[in-house]
Amino acid sequence: MRRKYLNLETMMKPRSVAIIGASQNPDKVGHIILQNYIDSSFPGKIYPVNINSQEPILGLKMYKRVGNIKAPIDLAVIAIPADVVPGVVEECGKAKVKSAIVVSGGFAEIGDTNLQEKLVQAAEKYSMPLLGPNCLGVMDPRSRIDTLFLPTFKIDKPKIGGVSFATQSGAVGSTVLDVISHEGFGMARFISYGNAAVIDEVDILNYLMHDEETKVIVFYIEGIKRPKEFVEVAKKATLIKPVVIIKGGITEEGSKAVQSHTASLAGSYQTYEAIFKQYGFTIARDLDELLYYAKIFDTQPLTTGNRIAVMTNGGGTGVLATDALYQNGLKLANLSRKSQLGLRKAMPSIVNIRLPLDLAGDADDKRFTTALDILSKDSNVDAMMVIALFQTPGADSRVAASLIHYNTQMSKPFVVISPGGSYTEVHRNMMESSGVPVYDSPFIAAKALSALIEYARYKRSVGANAKNKS
Amino acid sequence: MRRKYLNLETMMKPRSVAIIGASQNPDKVGHIILQNYIDSSFPGKIYPVNINSQEPILGLKMYKRVGNIKAPIDLAVIAIPADVVPGVVEECGKAKVKSAIVVSGGFAEIGDTNLQEKLVQAAEKYSMPLLGPNCLGVMDPRSRIDTLFLPTFKIDKPKIGGVSFATQSGAVGSTVLDVISHEGFGMARFISYGNAAVIDEVDILNYLMHDEETKVIVFYIEGIKRPKEFVEVAKKATLIKPVVIIKGGITEEGSKAVQSHTASLAGSYQTYEAIFKQYGFTIARDLDELLYYAKIFDTQPLTTGNRIAVMTNGGGTGVLATDALYQNGLKLANLSRKSQLGLRKAMPSIVNIRLPLDLAGDADDKRFTTALDILSKDSNVDAMMVIALFQTPGADSRVAASLIHYNTQMSKPFVVISPGGSYTEVHRNMMESSGVPVYDSPFIAAKALSALIEYARYKRSVGANAKNKS
Repeated sequence: MRRKYLNLETMMKPRSVAIIGASQNPDKVGHIILQNYIDSSFPGKIYPVNINSQEPILGLKMYKRVGNIKAPIDLAVIAIPADVVPGVVEECGKAKVKSAIVVSGGFAEIGDTNLQEKLVQAAEKYSMPLLGPNCLGVMDPRSRIDTLFLPTFKIDKPKIGGVSFATQSGAVGSTVLDVISHEGFGMARFISYGNAAVIDEVDILNYLMHDEETKVIVFYIEGIKRPKEFVEVAKKATLIKPVVIIKGGITEEGSKAVQSHTASLAGSYQTYEAIFKQYGFTIARDLDELLYYAKIFDTQPLTTGNRIAVMTNGGGTGVLATDALYQNGLKLANLSRKSQLGLRKAMPSIVNIRLPLDLAGDADDKRFTTALDILSKDSNVDAMMVIALFQTPGADSRVAASLIHYNTQMSKPFVVISPGGSYTEVHRNMMESSGVPVYDSPFIAAKALSALIEYARYKRSVGANAKNKS
Repeated sequence: MRRKYLNLETMMKPRSVAIIGASQNPDKVGHIILQNYIDSSFPGKIYPVNINSQEPILGLKMYKRVGNIKAPIDLAVIAIPADVVPGVVEECGKAKVKSAIVVSGGFAEIGDTNLQEKLVQAAEKYSMPLLGPNCLGVMDPRSRIDTLFLPTFKIDKPKIGGVSFATQSGAVGSTVLDVISHEGFGMARFISYGNAAVIDEVDILNYLMHDEETKVIVFYIEGIKRPKEFVEVAKKATLIKPVVIIKGGITEEGSKAVQSHTASLAGSYQTYEAIFKQYGFTIARDLDELLYYAKIFDTQPLTTGNRIAVMTNGGGTGVLATDALYQNGLKLANLSRKSQLGLRKAMPSIVNIRLPLDLAGDADDKRFTTALDILSKDSNVDAMMVIALFQTPGADSRVAASLIHYNTQMSKPFVVISPGGSYTEVHRNMMESSGVPVYDSPFIAAKALSALIEYARYKRSVGANAKNKS
């Protein structure tokens, strides 16, 4: 019998890993995985296993079978032809291997539900948490586990951080991982779970909601195997931390594509959407949205207030930002009398003292800093949106440094909009790597802020209800 | 009396330019503009003018007044305090200067409508096409004119191409210019027109629609001064080429922000939107959308068909692309029997012969090329959407080269989706600089394709009506 929630801890933080299907051929998955372990300086023990060859590989002793290892194994990574996988899982069970990841494809996703059933039975017989099949496995920059069979030079490496990403699709997974790393915000856990034969959405959500390193959970799902249990866990999860979700197969044709991809039943999206909304999930429509939301939840505190102070060094972008606020359920703050007087005293006469505060094209770091200082302290302001256009004569690294400073000091949400080319990119990188969420355009930034506020309001209302009932 | 449509030709392709307000102080606008001319190897004559100093500047003779130059002047760029601008325009008129750009601010946008009126009268007295005030002026990579007073190291330089961008806001202008340059698609004309005191939206649209170098017109507007004439020109313009438009001040609060920015009457957005839709404009909601649309119109042929062939080397992204098509009024093509047989014969057995065509994670350039060849020739296919994930083991520069080849060969619209980090960026740049429109996510790509098809259908239906009537 399967436990209600399988634990992923041994899989995410293994002290010893058997790589079954380790190959001398550098093009084979089993070789790439082993190479990646070595490249990532994985601190635990590594045992390559190959039934056909016992030549040492990459300086390590090769084992014929997992049973020959005679040492405790926390995780077996299995990359061998599908038809022999169930037998090898059985062997792992006998050898008391604590968890397994099956990266091999060729199960339910190509119609072979029998073979997948055999795999499930083998895992369940030994109560073994098994991830996959047909998946990339896991990556964790803290424990340095990395089972992805992708050439490392093709994917930027994430820094350590608070975003955990679970994905049914390996391709979506590796792409998002690459973009997250490139944008400079940090990752806690990466889990590609493919066909979800044993470990499924429910186990993963349950694991991540209790995981202290995870600040925000991001999910790409195609179907949900146990809807009732999912709702049960989801209810609790969103009271602890934000969950951003994107569902593949929300149209009829998309759901047909899901069928031939991971053999999930896509189900009616209306049902899913209703569940997601009811339990405070943040729903993304597209891959880029997923990242916009992850970024703000990872770096910013929550607020239930929607009074935004917008400041800009470009008037037109301030206009667009104002439109974007009101289109996304936010509004401009009414500055306190004190702020108004303070700004009037400090700003040159060409600056109109009203929001959006147009600092003008010649604004330098001093003007930015003064305005940031006054606006961030105004109790009528719930969050700040700063448009910093680095194309203007006055904007340089000192402006970026000032934004970083106020993002760190402030206890209110803070977003920056800085579209541009090479010169801007340097400053975006500076800011992003210091935890400032930077966006390409006002609408996206407003959408992200709006999602943050919506989630905070959900948490407050449901949390309050839960209290009243107890 | 003002002519109906002012001509911008002398301003865009001047053979001689007077820079009035040229300054020895490198922080002054008049200095930066002069320096930029010299940096951009402007091939025409340059005459610096400064009433206070006749020291030579940057190796050029300095003139006290424009009247002293005694040579024909095509364009005067005026960067001096607002209150003396009308008098200098009068001087320019007397000296038979053919056109003028007033970059100085301090007119209607700060409430001084009187001063602006004086400026208008001076220009009209000499029938002088005058751009501004309160603007950045123009840039044209062909004629090498560049009146932008922005430090050149802060903005990427555009290559020569087909996108013309006209903007009421200088900040939006310089930002978009920078992003366009960075993304590697080419620019025809850049026009920042500020307060639109003399040359306005109508003149610019009329000029650009007849301009042979302009393939697609992109507009940021805050208000329209002559709505009746605008409609008259718009009607003709969209029959010739696509016009992408974004309007600042579409909410009540946004329209208040417009008032203090360029003193335009924002007007009711409902009215504008109705006009834009009726006359086949492509409406962008945000700065990033503006660029997505510009990119596809600049590089791809039109089609009125919405049957899309989607191919991918990542299953999950194929699912999301399918959802994105149906959410944007597009659909998957039904492949011909011939294509199906051809693909079945050429593809390995793990590849399911249906759309979205999942080439699998190990797809290399050969598999991509075969599929591109078959799908692009299928008469049931109106356009192609290719998802190329460069994180996968098989995808490399040969795949990018194959996509470039088919984009060039095909007479159907072609879009690529390649999200990712550093390794992907190299390939995106390769493709973008060869005219392949590359997008970050399926939804955006579908939206761009949908805009292209919608415009093609508008053009067909209105063009046909126009024919029937004649």
